[in-house]
Amino acid sequence: MSRKVGIVTVLAAIAVFAMAGTAFAAGDPSTTITGKAGGADASIAVNLLWIVLGAVLVIFMQAGFALVETGFCRAKHAAHVVSTNFAVFGLGFVAFFLIGFPIMFSNFSYAGYFGLDTALSPDRLIGFGDWTFLWGRTGFGLSGAAYSAPVAAFFLYMVAFMDTTATIPTGSMAERWKWKSFVGWGLFCGAIYYPIFGGWTWGGGWLSQLGNNVGLGFGYVDFAGSGVVHAVGGIAALTGAIVLGPRLGKYGANKKPRALAGHNIPMAMLGTFILLFGWFGFNAASTFAATDVRFAVVAVNTAIAAAFGAVIAMFYVMKRMGKPDPGMMANGMLAGLVAITAPCAFVQPWAAALIGAIAAVVVVESCMFWERKGIDDPVGAISVHGVCGIFGVLCVGIFSDGRYGAGWNLTTSGSAAKATGITGILYDFDLGLKQLGSQAIGALVIIFVMGGLSFGFFKLQNKLTKGGIRSSEADEIAGLDRPEMGVLAYDNIQVREIDVVGLDPADDKVLATGGDSPDPTLGR
Amino acid sequence: MSRKVGIVTVLAAIAVFAMAGTAFAAGDPSTTITGKAGGADASIAVNLLWIVLGAVLVIFMQAGFALVETGFCRAKHAAHVVSTNFAVFGLGFVAFFLIGFPIMFSNFSYAGYFGLDTALSPDRLIGFGDWTFLWGRTGFGLSGAAYSAPVAAFFLYMVAFMDTTATIPTGSMAERWKWKSFVGWGLFCGAIYYPIFGGWTWGGGWLSQLGNNVGLGFGYVDFAGSGVVHAVGGIAALTGAIVLGPRLGKYGANKKPRALAGHNIPMAMLGTFILLFGWFGFNAASTFAATDVRFAVVAVNTAIAAAFGAVIAMFYVMKRMGKPDPGMMANGMLAGLVAITAPCAFVQPWAAALIGAIAAVVVVESCMFWERKGIDDPVGAISVHGVCGIFGVLCVGIFSDGRYGAGWNLTTSGSAAKATGITGILYDFDLGLKQLGSQAIGALVIIFVMGGLSFGFFKLQNKLTKGGIRSSEADEIAGLDRPEMGVLAYDNIQVREIDVVGLDPADDKVLATGGDSPDPTLGR
Amino acid sequence: MSRKVGIVTVLAAIAVFAMAGTAFAAGDPSTTITGKAGGADASIAVNLLWIVLGAVLVIFMQAGFALVETGFCRAKHAAHVVSTNFAVFGLGFVAFFLIGFPIMFSNFSYAGYFGLDTALSPDRLIGFGDWTFLWGRTGFGLSGAAYSAPVAAFFLYMVAFMDTTATIPTGSMAERWKWKSFVGWGLFCGAIYYPIFGGWTWGGGWLSQLGNNVGLGFGYVDFAGSGVVHAVGGIAALTGAIVLGPRLGKYGANKKPRALAGHNIPMAMLGTFILLFGWFGFNAASTFAATDVRFAVVAVNTAIAAAFGAVIAMFYVMKRMGKPDPGMMANGMLAGLVAITAPCAFVQPWAAALIGAIAAVVVVESCMFWERKGIDDPVGAISVHGVCGIFGVLCVGIFSDGRYGAGWNLTTSGSAAKATGITGILYDFDLGLKQLGSQAIGALVIIFVMGGLSFGFFKLQNKLTKGGIRSSEADEIAGLDRPEMGVLAYDNIQVREIDVVGLDPADDKVLATGGDSPDPTLGR
Repeated sequence: MSRKVGIVTVLAAIAVFAMAGTAFAAGDPSTTITGKAGGADASIAVNLLWIVLGAVLVIFMQAGFALVETGFCRAKHAAHVVSTNFAVFGLGFVAFFLIGFPIMFSNFSYAGYFGLDTALSPDRLIGFGDWTFLWGRTGFGLSGAAYSAPVAAFFLYMVAFMDTTATIPTGSMAERWKWKSFVGWGLFCGAIYYPIFGGWTWGGGWLSQLGNNVGLGFGYVDFAGSGVVHAVGGIAALTGAIVLGPRLGKYGANKKPRALAGHNIPMAMLGTFILLFGWFGFNAASTFAATDVRFAVVAVNTAIAAAFGAVIAMFYVMKRMGKPDPGMMANGMLAGLVAITAPCAFVQPWAAALIGAIAAVVVVESCMFWERKGIDDPVGAISVHGVCGIFGVLCVGIFSDGRYGAGWNLTTSGSAAKATGITGILYDFDLGLKQLGSQAIGALVIIFVMGGLSFGFFKLQNKLTKGGIRSSEADEIAGLDRPEMGVLAYDNIQVREIDVVGLDPADDKVLATGGDSPDPTLGR
Repeated sequence: MSRKVGIVTVLAAIAVFAMAGTAFAAGDPSTTITGKAGGADASIAVNLLWIVLGAVLVIFMQAGFALVETGFCRAKHAAHVVSTNFAVFGLGFVAFFLIGFPIMFSNFSYAGYFGLDTALSPDRLIGFGDWTFLWGRTGFGLSGAAYSAPVAAFFLYMVAFMDTTATIPTGSMAERWKWKSFVGWGLFCGAIYYPIFGGWTWGGGWLSQLGNNVGLGFGYVDFAGSGVVHAVGGIAALTGAIVLGPRLGKYGANKKPRALAGHNIPMAMLGTFILLFGWFGFNAASTFAATDVRFAVVAVNTAIAAAFGAVIAMFYVMKRMGKPDPGMMANGMLAGLVAITAPCAFVQPWAAALIGAIAAVVVVESCMFWERKGIDDPVGAISVHGVCGIFGVLCVGIFSDGRYGAGWNLTTSGSAAKATGITGILYDFDLGLKQLGSQAIGALVIIFVMGGLSFGFFKLQNKLTKGGIRSSEADEIAGLDRPEMGVLAYDNIQVREIDVVGLDPADDKVLATGGDSPDPTLGR
Repeated sequence: MSRKVGIVTVLAAIAVFAMAGTAFAAGDPSTTITGKAGGADASIAVNLLWIVLGAVLVIFMQAGFALVETGFCRAKHAAHVVSTNFAVFGLGFVAFFLIGFPIMFSNFSYAGYFGLDTALSPDRLIGFGDWTFLWGRTGFGLSGAAYSAPVAAFFLYMVAFMDTTATIPTGSMAERWKWKSFVGWGLFCGAIYYPIFGGWTWGGGWLSQLGNNVGLGFGYVDFAGSGVVHAVGGIAALTGAIVLGPRLGKYGANKKPRALAGHNIPMAMLGTFILLFGWFGFNAASTFAATDVRFAVVAVNTAIAAAFGAVIAMFYVMKRMGKPDPGMMANGMLAGLVAITAPCAFVQPWAAALIGAIAAVVVVESCMFWERKGIDDPVGAISVHGVCGIFGVLCVGIFSDGRYGAGWNLTTSGSAAKATGITGILYDFDLGLKQLGSQAIGALVIIFVMGGLSFGFFKLQNKLTKGGIRSSEADEIAGLDRPEMGVLAYDNIQVREIDVVGLDPADDKVLATGGDSPDPTLGR
């Protein structure tokens, strides 16, 4: 590994210095930054501010994911789980900065709002006729023309979205994932995995042009990323969990699942609140403009779906299981948030309420479905992000009321050309059906193409890594903290081992051994 | 209960679909949203942005309340306490969205700042002559004319305030409140309780018109809700704690109180910092406009009161008890914040310092007063929000310097008509006395009307609920986590029971039994 | 002590009432606040909003420091550590409000952006010819002309920066610092210590005029405070740690250091994320204007340095020690953030990446250096803030690309007069060398002058305090929570004592006694 570390470091250093080279070139006017001498127009200022603040809110969501996932896992793995969530921010970021961003966005522009009026590059890397599969000609490391305030703001917002995708599998794969294998995922996601589907939909690639090219409504529409971010991350979470297999002790006799309770409910609840907080940046700043006042409707739809998701999940779980499971309440809110993320700008408040409510029921049933199927997902990431993400993608084609989004995806042909906004089947059946078609294609691409890509990645990595990408049995039983991270999460706190290994498999109950955790001084 | 759950679900579904019905009606121009085609004026954009960001900050305060209350409670109830704080966000929200918001605000408008230039409805539901007691003709579920960006932003800000009120009793009633009874409170507060006093003061109701109608200054003035939010929540916290009675073991012989120490001081401190953070949205965004630059003075006054509150509480407690109790430091900061919330826009920095300092002393003495009186408030919510809220309401009539707030409450008659702003007795004794009169009326209405309403609600609920709204003694001794929530807060962490039940009542000390917490696998 | 408390209280009361006196004086037009009657220009509104939001983000960083420091310390001191971080916010704030702010800033103005177009006072307190050493003629307690929206916003931003400095030594001095001695530091830092160097650099004092007065580039340039805030705090952290000496048990035979593991890694990680979140306010809002769109470049440079810092620290530690120590990952991110804080506005993204990467290596080596040297810093504050702060100061003179900052420090003479922005040696060797000279002078002043001042303060306080500023040995062994704060951090949670006292000094391992923590009821 240390050789690989060296290689990565050297490659990164080369990249950085290559960019430095371009930076010393004679003054390119496109890199001029408006400084103090001339203040910007107030509209551009407030729009840039909104994008940057939105990015900051989304970046803070990393803390939310870290707490939700760590709280729902067991204490003996807590330093490992929280550290994967911490490290993935940087790993994905570095890869997206060096490679992923231009692949996804070098042809992106958005005239009239925050200064990104022309694309970094008009060319594409891979494409055929009307179909573009890879952008990426300029902007690596934000060098050259990418050194400007509008690109900086846009990059910051977009890298934060990528990191959300990158962190989703750390939940489903928790408690049994080797650190070094996780590191590989973080780099792969930021450099390649996320930018591919992202470029197809938000970068102007082929999925976004299904309206212009084959007349399917406005093409694939995903306002803030139920699909691009959440389902794309969720499908990786699913394939990763499949490759790893369930945790030791998760299943008893006849594959009957056992509950392996999380170790800190208040931590998970705080994480959920942080995610709610950050989600307003995620969704509402996706207008890229405060002067597009639709952001206020987006914000309120986001809150409505979150509230209905949490409340309906609570009532549903109380009815189904008798008690208001805190984990399901939290996942209900997150499910509502994931599902509203694609349609949030296009639907009315009543629809946001309904979408949140449905997502809450979906997430509860989905969690139990995967558990029954032998897929062990310690935090419910597959259901929250994957399943509810797909649901959100489809909602665009159902609930959109036609009041917002005229000209979306630069669509100028077909029935969409005459529409005043994205329209779902409830408001115009014909146009809505075409829109739903685009949405369904997007969903299928996520499931099969991105699912295949991530499954292939984990499988290949599993083959190439000595001993595979799963931790050793001894490490998993001891807890990954000491063997993988070198420290315990809670060095001075008494941790009670919940030992489910070596039990009679016919016993579906988890037994506490009652013993203390291992001597904290071991291994120092 | 499951029948009641079903009824609630069906009612909510009917409401949502009723709104959906209005949504399919032919295009009402009032619902047109400015979209990408035409960008908004930069002033309106920045003002809407400030309101939405303010709302987001206030929503994040829910996390702060959750952590403060959970940290100050005992570990065996921690999942229950944090879950009430989590769930109340959604419960209050759904009720306010469906019912409460239009009751409070359907006649509200605020021309010239963020686009809410005309009210949703000019009519009222209940009122006599100049006196309005209930608004609420349109805007249920943000349907119809309420589907617009300015209303969306305003709703989001206001629902966040309501949720603050709703969460206050979860503190004073912690560790002994049945989950299902708590659910009833959440819905009642969002639908009815909060909107009543809110409509009287911020919706243009009778308390706000005491200036125009009976010449009492500018009528009841409460900039960001020392009264509307905090005291209204605090009085419910008091009445709820009375109805529940003190926790088992709280009082020994001769009703001498015992300290039942909280289980996580860092958690409570983090919660306090989150509340401070969110409070800037709470107070400073209450200008509803960034172009009203007074928001900067509001922000600094808020910080000053918080800082002086924390510092003076620390010195006062060191002097009174010998050690700087962390709980009292935190409550001192919160006391300063609550007290400055009503006057924050109208007073000078020196006054903010003084208000924060006084509130710090008040909260320490108040906590001990209620404890002596046999009212058990595990986190000090009654003192922080109730007592210091009332103090803040009165401060408006004392410290306001007359420099801001001309025309407040649309007051056009009496001496206020000539005043350049809200004025307290320190700056103009006559006008100030009238203003103080309005403030005192508001305070009395909170104490007696809202106090009576909440007391009646809890008493009635206690009567109608089988076994009352208080948890069973067995559940309370075991900790509410397993019996009420189905999970432990800290499943893998060793929790030490501090057993105060069954002790010799003459013994004022709390004894640790030294035993472990119950087998975490029980009840799975 | 109680006498001292009384004196402080009386002095503060006198100060507040003195300000009140000025407040009742006849209307001074300079105190007029733009209210609702006339809305502000949208540009001023958005700029003021950015400053206030930036301040709010920086204030929230206090929570981040509290969690990082508490998480990296041991459980038996956790209530003490978190409380110092909590209390220092108020202590520093009150002192800065009453005394420090005008000393630092009463001559500051910044025309054209947010309304602070003229200084509070054109005069200075102490200065000779072109060299100013102390401002401070007006604005105490924000009274008089300082009662205005622009000053309020500016004060709020600046008080938050001061509090960051104040809280840095609470890390290096943790687990052995008497509460009352800490209180003295908080007041000293806010009133005197921080404002001195701050005034020299940001208030227009002599260091900022090294360009105009002796031709050294633009004078000392420190965009957001690698030096002013972090290194100034870090040098106090170093001198304080020296005066206190290492914790009991930190060093075994031959002064060989022992690892005293922190008690809560997830807490420290959350704190790091909160710091990252707040740092965007720290750096990007230091433009004092959203209309200066360079803030977007600042934000992205900040994120890049943080990401590279975390990633390179991880790889470096994996290579050096075999495992990705979570503490070092967190400190790597913080090191990148500290180092980019001074140059963030002047450098290109590739340079931000390189600066973050170098800082990561520096912080790892520095932590081990100080530990070897016998300086015990439980959280790495000296290395993160002190060493990387100095490094950041020097980076301005190396990496600045000359594209931003024309006229900085009001420099009108020398080669800087013709430069289009701050320029480092990589872009123009001559001008860069002069700039680097100014930066080096600033760094030396921090190390020797501020270091001497803080060392003198702690030494003097140590002499004047009965028993010195260090806690008694008994308290330190028992944990400071009960003796100093009167409560335990985790009253119901089993804490395992890691006992390193009384061991054979030849034994370099830390042993767990295996015993429970002391009876939590002792001392009630």
